[in-house]
Amino acid sequence: MKPLDAISISLPPWLPAVDGLFDPRPTVEDRMALVLELVAHNIEDGGGPFAAAVFDADGRLVAPGVNRVVPASASIAHAEIVAIAAAGQRLGTWNLAGRGAHQLVTSAEPCAMCLGAVPWSGATSLVTGARDADARAVGFDEGDKPDGWERLLAARGIEVIRDVGRARATELLQHYLRTGGEIYNG
Amino acid sequence: MKPLDAISISLPPWLPAVDGLFDPRPTVEDRMALVLELVAHNIEDGGGPFAAAVFDADGRLVAPGVNRVVPASASIAHAEIVAIAAAGQRLGTWNLAGRGAHQLVTSAEPCAMCLGAVPWSGATSLVTGARDADARAVGFDEGDKPDGWERLLAARGIEVIRDVGRARATELLQHYLRTGGEIYNG
Repeated sequence: MKPLDAISISLPPWLPAVDGLFDPRPTVEDRMALVLELVAHNIEDGGGPFAAAVFDADGRLVAPGVNRVVPASASIAHAEIVAIAAAGQRLGTWNLAGRGAHQLVTSAEPCAMCLGAVPWSGATSLVTGARDADARAVGFDEGDKPDGWERLLAARGIEVIRDVGRARATELLQHYLRTGGEIYNG
Repeated sequence: MKPLDAISISLPPWLPAVDGLFDPRPTVEDRMALVLELVAHNIEDGGGPFAAAVFDADGRLVAPGVNRVVPASASIAHAEIVAIAAAGQRLGTWNLAGRGAHQLVTSAEPCAMCLGAVPWSGATSLVTGARDADARAVGFDEGDKPDGWERLLAARGIEVIRDVGRARATELLQHYLRTGGEIYNG
């Protein structure tokens, strides 16, 4: 077995080469457009149909994340978890809030695990594309979330903006299903 | 900034050298005793007061995890997340259930994020030490969990065994507080 030295989740080699990755993105629609482009790339690469990214207050990308569950042998390697950890490690802090407002943009409403991760990250806002129901329609289990989770995030000072690019995000989930992608629920 | 190649969470160097780490541990009490020893080591090393471990059906350790939030600059590096990812990477699978029954033993009831991670891991049972209330009493935020989470895990076929070593687990949390450990909520 692998020695007990570290866990490591690689980002796909195509990711840093995405065109315009670090271009400023003033609107949430601009940011979601990038995230959905990462979804399309990840599906094409044989990965899961989910992506996320952390942006700073100026709309500049801090770190992207894509679903790496299967290639990394890590059930926890959802796009949001990867993006949050990558952002922290790029900035050298566990707490994004200490470096100003940060926004987590994700291609689908976060599952129970990723939802729980949002307040710990220090992100000050959350932007989502596809809804739970859209991901469940494809066969993905979103887990057991607390009722009224949007309200609970708001109560923690985290703004939630839903349904940004929802149609395209849902189309990508359905494309994944049609092309025979693995549904890797636990 | 760090390049976009991977996220990495190192395990502390003292961890593989813990005495009797891979000894068979037939009972949940034996397994929790190891996990609480890892908590004590992690506090002494300046880390957070939380540890977890994945055991196979024979009570043999597959992978340990300790809280690495501060040293790894990763808010998601809770002990359970680290243990689940380390177990998957050691076995070369995202799904522990595919390799037989696996038990996640954790020094405190999982926070909202780690709770959400349990079903994705394929673990078939969860053993907890300190209660939510014990962690909250020290100042740790456990997040917004769904009501009746033990029942929800049971409904997914995941057995929950609580309060194993609770007194010692709580004592360690209080020791951390007394010695001035950082409370790193988001």
